[in-house]
Amino acid sequence: MAVPIILIVALIAGVISIVMAYYFSRLVLKEDPGNERMVEVAGYIEKGATTYLKIQYKILGIFVGVLFIILILFLPTEMTAGNIPILSGDLNWEQGLAYLIGAIGSMLAGWLGMYVGVKANTRAAQGCTIGTKKGFDIAFFGGSVMGLAVVGVALIGVSTLYWIFQNPLIVLGFSFGASSIALFMKCGGGIYTKTADVGADLVGKAEYNLPEDDPRNPATIADNVGDNVGDIAGMGSDLFDSYVASIVAAMILAAALVAGDLSGSFIIYPIVLSGVGLIASLIGIFFIKWKGSEDPGKSLNLGTYFSTLIFAGLGALFAFLMMLDPLLDPSYHAKIWLDYFAVLLGLASGLIIGFTSDYFTRDDKKPTRNMAHAAQEGHAVVILSGLSYGLISVVPPAIGISFAMAFAFILDGFLGVAMAAVGMLAIVGTIVSNDAYGPIVDNARAIAEQGELGDDIIRTADRLDSAGNTAKAITKGFAIGAANLTVLALLFSFAEEAGITIIDLLDVKVLIGGFIGVVVPALFSALLIRAVQRNAAKMVDEIRRQFESNPKILTGEEAADFSKTIDIATRGSIRELVAPSIISIVIPLVVGILFGVAALGAFLAGAILSGFVFAVMMSNAGGAWDNAKKWIEDGNLGGKGTEIHKASITGDTVGDPFKDTAGPSINTLLVVMSLTASIFMGFLLLFSGGAGLLAFLI
Amino acid sequence: MAVPIILIVALIAGVISIVMAYYFSRLVLKEDPGNERMVEVAGYIEKGATTYLKIQYKILGIFVGVLFIILILFLPTEMTAGNIPILSGDLNWEQGLAYLIGAIGSMLAGWLGMYVGVKANTRAAQGCTIGTKKGFDIAFFGGSVMGLAVVGVALIGVSTLYWIFQNPLIVLGFSFGASSIALFMKCGGGIYTKTADVGADLVGKAEYNLPEDDPRNPATIADNVGDNVGDIAGMGSDLFDSYVASIVAAMILAAALVAGDLSGSFIIYPIVLSGVGLIASLIGIFFIKWKGSEDPGKSLNLGTYFSTLIFAGLGALFAFLMMLDPLLDPSYHAKIWLDYFAVLLGLASGLIIGFTSDYFTRDDKKPTRNMAHAAQEGHAVVILSGLSYGLISVVPPAIGISFAMAFAFILDGFLGVAMAAVGMLAIVGTIVSNDAYGPIVDNARAIAEQGELGDDIIRTADRLDSAGNTAKAITKGFAIGAANLTVLALLFSFAEEAGITIIDLLDVKVLIGGFIGVVVPALFSALLIRAVQRNAAKMVDEIRRQFESNPKILTGEEAADFSKTIDIATRGSIRELVAPSIISIVIPLVVGILFGVAALGAFLAGAILSGFVFAVMMSNAGGAWDNAKKWIEDGNLGGKGTEIHKASITGDTVGDPFKDTAGPSINTLLVVMSLTASIFMGFLLLFSGGAGLLAFLI
Repeated sequence: MAVPIILIVALIAGVISIVMAYYFSRLVLKEDPGNERMVEVAGYIEKGATTYLKIQYKILGIFVGVLFIILILFLPTEMTAGNIPILSGDLNWEQGLAYLIGAIGSMLAGWLGMYVGVKANTRAAQGCTIGTKKGFDIAFFGGSVMGLAVVGVALIGVSTLYWIFQNPLIVLGFSFGASSIALFMKCGGGIYTKTADVGADLVGKAEYNLPEDDPRNPATIADNVGDNVGDIAGMGSDLFDSYVASIVAAMILAAALVAGDLSGSFIIYPIVLSGVGLIASLIGIFFIKWKGSEDPGKSLNLGTYFSTLIFAGLGALFAFLMMLDPLLDPSYHAKIWLDYFAVLLGLASGLIIGFTSDYFTRDDKKPTRNMAHAAQEGHAVVILSGLSYGLISVVPPAIGISFAMAFAFILDGFLGVAMAAVGMLAIVGTIVSNDAYGPIVDNARAIAEQGELGDDIIRTADRLDSAGNTAKAITKGFAIGAANLTVLALLFSFAEEAGITIIDLLDVKVLIGGFIGVVVPALFSALLIRAVQRNAAKMVDEIRRQFESNPKILTGEEAADFSKTIDIATRGSIRELVAPSIISIVIPLVVGILFGVAALGAFLAGAILSGFVFAVMMSNAGGAWDNAKKWIEDGNLGGKGTEIHKASITGDTVGDPFKDTAGPSINTLLVVMSLTASIFMGFLLLFSGGAGLLAFLI
Repeated sequence: MAVPIILIVALIAGVISIVMAYYFSRLVLKEDPGNERMVEVAGYIEKGATTYLKIQYKILGIFVGVLFIILILFLPTEMTAGNIPILSGDLNWEQGLAYLIGAIGSMLAGWLGMYVGVKANTRAAQGCTIGTKKGFDIAFFGGSVMGLAVVGVALIGVSTLYWIFQNPLIVLGFSFGASSIALFMKCGGGIYTKTADVGADLVGKAEYNLPEDDPRNPATIADNVGDNVGDIAGMGSDLFDSYVASIVAAMILAAALVAGDLSGSFIIYPIVLSGVGLIASLIGIFFIKWKGSEDPGKSLNLGTYFSTLIFAGLGALFAFLMMLDPLLDPSYHAKIWLDYFAVLLGLASGLIIGFTSDYFTRDDKKPTRNMAHAAQEGHAVVILSGLSYGLISVVPPAIGISFAMAFAFILDGFLGVAMAAVGMLAIVGTIVSNDAYGPIVDNARAIAEQGELGDDIIRTADRLDSAGNTAKAITKGFAIGAANLTVLALLFSFAEEAGITIIDLLDVKVLIGGFIGVVVPALFSALLIRAVQRNAAKMVDEIRRQFESNPKILTGEEAADFSKTIDIATRGSIRELVAPSIISIVIPLVVGILFGVAALGAFLAGAILSGFVFAVMMSNAGGAWDNAKKWIEDGNLGGKGTEIHKASITGDTVGDPFKDTAGPSINTLLVVMSLTASIFMGFLLLFSGGAGLLAFLI
């Protein structure tokens, strides 16, 4: 069976993306890394980051290997009951291989992005000595490497696998591989970065009044490493995972629509459209590079809007071209256009979520201002204010997602919803680039401080840094919205695969499934918050120990022992991610085995809905606390060192694991649980034909 | 049509209950109210409480009146589309009347309980001068008045209305009346009590280092008033509401089972069984009175277990007697026994939830201990620790409720689930008595302090007070579990009434309904927390103003102006409850009108599940923070006045609106929303026959 040649668009876009990533990385690497001290600090950061990745990847290797064996031996690609590969002798090599490739691809993209990220930081700091433009360019190119690598690897993987196997379920294996890595990278990175950050703040800032990034603080380097492993590698693998999953969900739903006739162009529309999105992202990246130096913060956001616009235009053009494709059955012409409009809905809802996050976290808007004023009433009131604004901020994006879902469904049923997700994620190249820019400039600022480049240069780096924070609100909103639409699409494709046409809440089994689903994101967040808290406590002890055992560290005469703090963050983050990751695979399976696949569907729905509430709440509350603190530090309400400032630091510290550990990890949790449900379907159908072990009772 | 005479059991039990309440109140009132200063303070508290209730009841009068008119004019008792009373000329008098009686009954029980509560506090304080036993007896009798009044009014109301009209839907009107009052009483009381408490703590304790209940603190009296309006009147109306709703839900489901043949005894089984439960509660109350003086805390909990046991025994005896009832069709004999076992399941799950709350909030268990130790790392870590333990504490009760629901369903379908709720609430007389004991001894302690009864007497009062806190964990767990099972039963009875047999999550309308449902408890909690926070800020300003404008207040030479702070708490709590209460009625109606009754069912399910998570989390986290602080105040980890203590106060202050405002109000929210859905059914069926206005689109 021949594959429509139009698929080559996606493949070519993917290859261009990798080439550009390579080109940008060359541009970054040839820049001046700065003075000796800067190179030294950057070296520490690089070493810390690679050490972490090495340990992480070693454990991931075992995990991936075990799942690979389970896949090929026990889980059939075709999800009918009883066809256990090891019994039938027909091992599930193809999906297993796709799984391996997905996992390796995700690790590769993460490693590449981080490698360039840790090279770009010191160069961006040095660039700031030449000017804002130079500093911005280096940092942004560094970030783009991550963005382009993620999208390039994903698109090449998806299109090649489909080209070879012509089976969306094989691509599902690829997606599962990417997700299982993402879960570890996101949780582990999130725990790492906040262990270091919270630890550094609690002792360094609160007890010893050291400024941010002060080289005397033993956790400074670990904090910088954390930005890389959490915000670059973690965020990258998270979006990689949503990106692939949205494409796969759309393909599975499209395959159901064409009733298994995979010869036409309709089924590869999601892939190729994503290729078009990548081209739009590239244009957006060049736009940002062109405009970037003038007002960095605004440019990053403008670039996102510009990519969106270009994508909308190119998408329409491409839909028009599809009309000329002889391999597209004319009966699908209308659908291509309906799906195109669904894509626009996805983009629109992404923007709504982004705007909401922006509004609720910007220091010139009411919520963050009120939160800062709440600091005047003390620590507790800052917390109450942040929590309540965080919860309220869930409402607009929930309405946005509901509208997008409803209208996308009106346009083209479940496939419409999946296409809305594809649309939202199509410009992920730009999103990840903007996002990875953040930690690079954050590190650059730290290196400028430690390399003693002087106040002027630090101020320049500061400007670049605050631009990163502005962009972060929108990119986070996008990530949450995209993940949410994606998992909704996965829920529908799961039901499609399981042959479930009804998930009835008046069936008590199903209701219990939904109940467990609603509880899981709460439990998962709690475990991650506890992980950060416990690990940060160890960090606090270590920092206090260093200051007390060697008073010369505080006077700056002797260097702090960075390796100890890095070690605590590394070991702790890896140890603590075991429980949450087990949850995400074991609980869906237990629900499916006991209560059946319909209950598992309700479980997923419950987890998606409550996960959305927790993710948005935590991410917005965390962002607002952070900015309220910064606003006070800018000299408002008395400025630094006051009791009001201390109360705002409490808010920020509570917000840290909210916004950078638990909140964003929920996205990945949802994707992994949804994919687990689909991948293990053949296995679940063994239990009373998918009705669950307890079917005879309830 | 004759009503089975066995219903008289419930009526008699109700009357006995009221007689006992009257007798107990006489016992309390004839005690010595103590010295002049104590009478003065108690007078302030009483005046504050009655002022609040008067204003609150005035507004409630308008609200109830408006809903009464809407009910009789627009909402048919029989829930078929198109039979709008005002058009058919057949006004809905009967249900409207039942609604009025329910509302008035709830107000009456609340008023009576609070009247005796504010009389008992000073008498209990004076009783402490005679001995622990005397103090305990007075406080416990005072609390029992509330417990017995609640159950008595409810049972008399339900049984009389059923006797007259023989229609469970008329009793539904009574339930709706009780709930709409409960919502205002619970939210308003919760905001009041925490406005005063948080305000008093933030300035008095944190800024001026005044001890608890110090008469120099201008918010002290408001704080004491708050305990009465929040914990006595609020909690009482909350449980009144769940109690009635559980009976009604069971009756509606039983009526469906007997296919409308209401002449047998089967349908009144839930009412009569509740009467049996009341007798068990009375025995439990006497048991507590008998054992109470030895170890007050243990006795209160032992009393709960004892009531449970007695009820289990009496319930079996009664089920046996039912077998002899000639009006019970023998085909229901097996069902009576199955439902009896469902009742036992309800009781068991109530205990599980109680035990969990107890474990997660007791200062000699790991969670609270760890939270106290977290205070060593500062304010932020206490918060993170409490939030994560709170979220984790959701898991055991969720499993408990799931098991209870599953097994109750296995026993007797939806009716089994409703009977589990009836079972859990049957001993509500004991529960409310224990609960109302808490604020009475809390106030007694304050009055002992202000009446200068000396350290010994204060220590005695302290012992009684801490017993109240121990019992609180279990009673709160019961309240949440009971409300949860009740609203599940209401969901099933709603579906029964609407003729919905499927609530399909793969229907996008329904999924959106579920989504909105999951978001509502989050929004509702946020609004209540904000209400407390905003109002407390006003309180803080007022307290600071008094201290600054008149330095003699702090030296004790001049009295603080209590009326100002009481006024802030009263006005604020009433103003701030408008938004949350509108939500609970308007949102279900909007969902039902737009997306139809099946989506409304999913909305209720989503709200029930996410509401459970928020309610349990907030209530347990709040309780644990409170106890961690108290444990530190007992001299651990350095004791009072240290930075650790201050951090623990931050936890307690965040926990205050969690555990006493938002958390417990969610129960009422869920009941009100469920009843709104049922009561407005006939109206909702007007929109595309219940499919919703948007049915033609999605």
